[in-house]
Formats: sequence, structure tokens, C-alpha cells
Amino acid sequence: MQGTGETQPKAAAYVPTGRTVPTRAQDRASYDRDLVHSILDEGYLCHLGFVRDGAPVVLPTLYGRVGERLYVHGSTGSRPLRMTGQADPGLPVCLTVTHVDGLVLARSAFHHSVNYRSVVVHGVAHQVTDPEERRLALDALVDHVVPGRAADSRPANKKELAATAVIRLDLDEVSAKVRAGGASDEPEDMSLPYWAGVVPLRKGYDAPVAETDLAPGVGLPDYLAAPRPR
Amino acid sequence: MQGTGETQPKAAAYVPTGRTVPTRAQDRASYDRDLVHSILDEGYLCHLGFVRDGAPVVLPTLYGRVGERLYVHGSTGSRPLRMTGQADPGLPVCLTVTHVDGLVLARSAFHHSVNYRSVVVHGVAHQVTDPEERRLALDALVDHVVPGRAADSRPANKKELAATAVIRLDLDEVSAKVRAGGASDEPEDMSLPYWAGVVPLRKGYDAPVAETDLAPGVGLPDYLAAPRPR
Repeated sequence: MQGTGETQPKAAAYVPTGRTVPTRAQDRASYDRDLVHSILDEGYLCHLGFVRDGAPVVLPTLYGRVGERLYVHGSTGSRPLRMTGQADPGLPVCLTVTHVDGLVLARSAFHHSVNYRSVVVHGVAHQVTDPEERRLALDALVDHVVPGRAADSRPANKKELAATAVIRLDLDEVSAKVRAGGASDEPEDMSLPYWAGVVPLRKGYDAPVAETDLAPGVGLPDYLAAPRPR
Repeated sequence: MQGTGETQPKAAAYVPTGRTVPTRAQDRASYDRDLVHSILDEGYLCHLGFVRDGAPVVLPTLYGRVGERLYVHGSTGSRPLRMTGQADPGLPVCLTVTHVDGLVLARSAFHHSVNYRSVVVHGVAHQVTDPEERRLALDALVDHVVPGRAADSRPANKKELAATAVIRLDLDEVSAKVRAGGASDEPEDMSLPYWAGVVPLRKGYDAPVAETDLAPGVGLPDYLAAPRPR
């Protein structure tokens, strides 16, 4: 993939490590590359964890994927991005993306659950300084929020680029976790008088609300007429 | 509040600390107790961060709120819950809850954003061993997923309780962050031929899907007829 240093075909799965093999519910874990990509590409919000003064910090932020790299951006003054710049060897992070698909109601309180798909990425984040890679990353960030949007907005100018830090996290130590299906009640609970089943989350968007001062003749773009649910 | 040790009225706001005052966009930060509670009560999924072997770990998990305490549960064999038990003085954690309300499309790529409401809680998590507090916590966890559900399912039995660890995190070092409203484009960009506005996320649930083997006469409970959007 252009500009990302990828030249060789990738294996179908990520290699499990001590950090990516769960201590329980191992049947829900997967290292399949296509599954990981599909979960990442369906989202735009991640929770980024890092260590500050020995304590964990978890912040919500946007991300974008380009090949086997994830990008996060922010103000050059924001905390994790400054920390990445200060730490020469990079900043150890954990980036997690979670989609909830449904609520699972079992007859027993114990077996209540949610159907979800998540990806957890462990690694070391590095500041991106190459202008071309930064451009690709920023486009990917906008296109994750609304596919096709990066090409239909004013690109960042020099001042904006100077105020924006971009960090990169390679997809290397990665796992997905998926819970799907109905309630898993105990055999002896099946006749209890409680409803059981799945309540699917409604996905998608409501009608876009335009700014009141759009330039004359600017209508709703095609990519917003029916944005894909996620 | 019964069983949670609360006896005194609380101040209207949490006290900001070095960790809860953001380095930028401070106008989006709030320490208002009611706002924090409302954001927490609208959700059920958090991202829990902790430090393992010096590196950050961020895992999605369910939570429940009882007064000024958050509860997280899991298998006694799961990693953070085992770590909490091992660490006598408790496990430093960061618990983050985020609701995305809309996508913000600006005329400039730089000003793209999302409308969101988030709460970040810093603190030290402790194992809960008191049986009554554990019961309250487990009820709160189920009721966060579907309000009213805890009373309408079989409570955990001894074996299930023995397999379940519950950890507590006090709401003490807490901040909320809110971004709302339309696009914030630069004055010189207002006449550009790009659509700008907000795409609201659709909230709520689709029709519940019942298990096919419900006991005779068990119908959809009232609390699932129109579950509140979140």
C-alpha cells in the first residue's frame, strides 16, 4: 500500500501473544486479519489507553486505518500526543474498539450479557512526521467518520497541519473478541417464567441536519443520503 | 443510599484534579455531579484501563452505578479482577464511558468532529466482599443493561456468586466532557461548496428477538416494549 511501507502479502492471522490470549472465554477470541479489519473499518471511535505517572489513562478519540497501521490525531498540545513526542522510543498504548450489537437477556441474572465485537491492539505509538503519511492518515481519519468525505472537504492548510499531531500504531499484537447469538441459560432454568432473548441495537443515522448558512446550491451529498449503519 | 455507606449530602460538583483538567478544550470539561451521573446512567458499557507489566490494557466491560460508586464484575479468573484481588491496596484504574451523539461534518477537514458525551473516572478499584453490597452491585449491572430487569430474572445462586468477582470504583476523581452543536468552520470557509452539518446517530433498539423455547405463556415484558434509547 502506497506510503505505508507494505510490500509483502500478510498472513491470514495475527500471531497470538501473552497479552492477546484471554485468560477466559478463549473461544470468543480471534486473530483473523479480515475480521479485525472489518471491526476496525466499521468504527471511528476508539478508547486509547496509556500510562501517565504510573497510572492508566483511557481517552475516547477518533482513529483511522490504512493497511496495517492505525492512526490517531489530535492537537499538538493534547496529553497523549505530547507524551508520544517526548518519548523517543514511542509511547506504549492499548487501543480498543468495541461495537455493541445487542443486549442478551437470559432467564438468570448471571447469564445476562451483550453481543459485541471488539478489537484490542497493543503496541507502541510513534509520532508521524512524513508529510505524505500524515496526509494519508488525516484522510483516513475523516473517511472513517464518513466514507468519501475526505475528498469532499477543504484539505488542511499549513497552519492546521502544524497544529495537528498524528500518531501511528502498527497492527501487530492484535486480537478480536466476538459474542453473538442468544441467551445461554442453564438447562434447569429453561422453564422459569422469565422472558429471554436478544434486543438488537438500532444502527445507523437519523436525517442529517444542515448548517443554516451553506453556500447557495449546496445540497446533501450522495454519501450522506444513506450512510452505512455503524 | 442503603448499603453504600453514603450518609452525607454531596457537593454539586466533583473537585477537579491535575488528572481531570484537560490540557486543551477545557470549555468542554465539566465536573457537575448530575451531568456525570446522567452520562453514566445512560450507558452500560465502559472501557476499563489498568496497567499490566508496565503497559496499558483497555478492555470493554459492563458497569453499574449505585450512588457514588461504580461496579464492574467478571469471572474470578479474568485478568483485571484477579489483579485487583492480588493487589492489596487495590488496582489503579481509569474507567471511561462515551456516548457518540452525532457526526459533525465541517467544510474543512480540520474541523470535522463528533458530538459526544464522555465521563472519565480515575481511581483505585477494590474487590467487593460484603454480600449485600455485591448483591446491590450485581443488580445495578443488570439494571444498567435493561432498567427493571434485575427483579425479573433468577438471582444468582451460590455457585454463580462464588464464580463472580465484583470490583468497586468510587466516583471521586471524575470529569465529564461534552461536545454538542454544529460545525465550527472558519469564517473564510463559509462560502466553500461543501455540505456542512450534523448527522445524528440513531439511538434505541430494534424489535426484541425471543428465544424459541420460552416457557408457556411468557410474553414480552413491559420494560422491553419501548426500551429507552441509549
